[in-house]
Amino acid sequence: MPKFKLTLAYDGSAYHGWQSQKSGRGVADTVEAALARLFASSPKLVSSSRTDTGVHAMGLVAHLEIPPDELRMPARQLALAINSGLPDDIRVVAATRAAATFNARFDATAKQYCYTVWNHPAMNPLVRHRAWHVPQPLDLAAMKSAAALFVGRHDFRSFTAKRAGVLGDSTRTLTRCEVTRRGSEITILLEGGGFLYKMCRGIAGSLVQVGQGKFPPQEVSVMLNHRDRRSAGVNAPAHGLVLWKVTYSKNNKPTGSRIQRP
Amino acid sequence: MPKFKLTLAYDGSAYHGWQSQKSGRGVADTVEAALARLFASSPKLVSSSRTDTGVHAMGLVAHLEIPPDELRMPARQLALAINSGLPDDIRVVAATRAAATFNARFDATAKQYCYTVWNHPAMNPLVRHRAWHVPQPLDLAAMKSAAALFVGRHDFRSFTAKRAGVLGDSTRTLTRCEVTRRGSEITILLEGGGFLYKMCRGIAGSLVQVGQGKFPPQEVSVMLNHRDRRSAGVNAPAHGLVLWKVTYSKNNKPTGSRIQRP
Repeated sequence: MPKFKLTLAYDGSAYHGWQSQKSGRGVADTVEAALARLFASSPKLVSSSRTDTGVHAMGLVAHLEIPPDELRMPARQLALAINSGLPDDIRVVAATRAAATFNARFDATAKQYCYTVWNHPAMNPLVRHRAWHVPQPLDLAAMKSAAALFVGRHDFRSFTAKRAGVLGDSTRTLTRCEVTRRGSEITILLEGGGFLYKMCRGIAGSLVQVGQGKFPPQEVSVMLNHRDRRSAGVNAPAHGLVLWKVTYSKNNKPTGSRIQRP
Repeated sequence: MPKFKLTLAYDGSAYHGWQSQKSGRGVADTVEAALARLFASSPKLVSSSRTDTGVHAMGLVAHLEIPPDELRMPARQLALAINSGLPDDIRVVAATRAAATFNARFDATAKQYCYTVWNHPAMNPLVRHRAWHVPQPLDLAAMKSAAALFVGRHDFRSFTAKRAGVLGDSTRTLTRCEVTRRGSEITILLEGGGFLYKMCRGIAGSLVQVGQGKFPPQEVSVMLNHRDRRSAGVNAPAHGLVLWKVTYSKNNKPTGSRIQRP
């Protein structure tokens, strides 16, 4: 069956995460409802990631299959057709034909997340839905030192909200953890092969607490070694987090977000 | 009476502009309502600018006077106190004591506006409230050439929505008109001593039409010379425009926005 790869961007404010939940509507349901209006077979999405309630995306990747007899448009028109049935807080930013063997979930080789902090006594109303307001001054140098300690292969058990019983192997490799400031906006870029549940938010929250002087930077090593959620810092709120880009190996032609940082 | 200078940022989406209108609530009313809860004299605001319905601000400046017997806090606490009574789409980003002679409206020496275009086939949901979606490719070089023709002292009658009978002198000096691209985001920066009603949006709309190939860049000179609204391009929509910064002469200590671009 013809397979397609979609790159999706969304403002997660109004959704209970990517996946549908008992508690409310998910982004996936909403896109699948738009697909069902276009294709009688009601194609389902298989996605690279499941973002939490309130988390945003600029480059989530999903695949779907469309029966040949229902395909009445070329791939390049697929994005427009789906978008015409979506609310304006979700957009397909790219749609391409994928290999029959492509799997958006299992073939992903790397993911990039971006966490944004607005660091000024007053919040900026124009970014209030996509940045965490931290009014106190932050020590950026300390945050950078701490961030460097997250890079590499570690057991990230202290940085996930999942209970130990259901966790399985909690070793992950972070290839980038970079803190940058542009005016009042501080960005934490996280890149790795895979992430545990709420891991990005645990790292971002701990880094902000280092910036506030609540922990010295080297405490990050202690937190990692303890393998206990209680030894790490707070979870940063969901609305500051954006799934930025998902990378695939060359066999599957890497497709990141084709749109830029807001 | 003690005078204060406020720098305000707001998301204009929910407001009928700065000034209250018969058609609905203005930003000024909302801030004055918060002031009335703090000060029995219900101080009124005198502002540098009156933004239109849907236009945003990062650095609008306003002044107000507070009777000495009502002043129970230092200036640095004034911003926090007002913010605690404001909805989260409006924030006082700075409050300072001003000279008795300071006038936020008449003493402004320059204003900077920023117009944002999202130039990609699909809109970016995270900037949908503060950028104009232009899906077709734009010729940036042509837009830059056209922008340069706006700089200088001109009669901007063709770029204002105001009727000629009530317009008065329509000569203004633009010191900067710069078009830059960062990925899919195109920014038009406009700086000048003063602007006519809807002038920024007329210039931005005309520049986008130059980018779309509807006019050659040099047509800008023809538009300016005609002194007739019908000879210029479309008005760009309000939600892409942000009043960025207001500058005052050194006598009044220049106070721009203390927060950065979103």
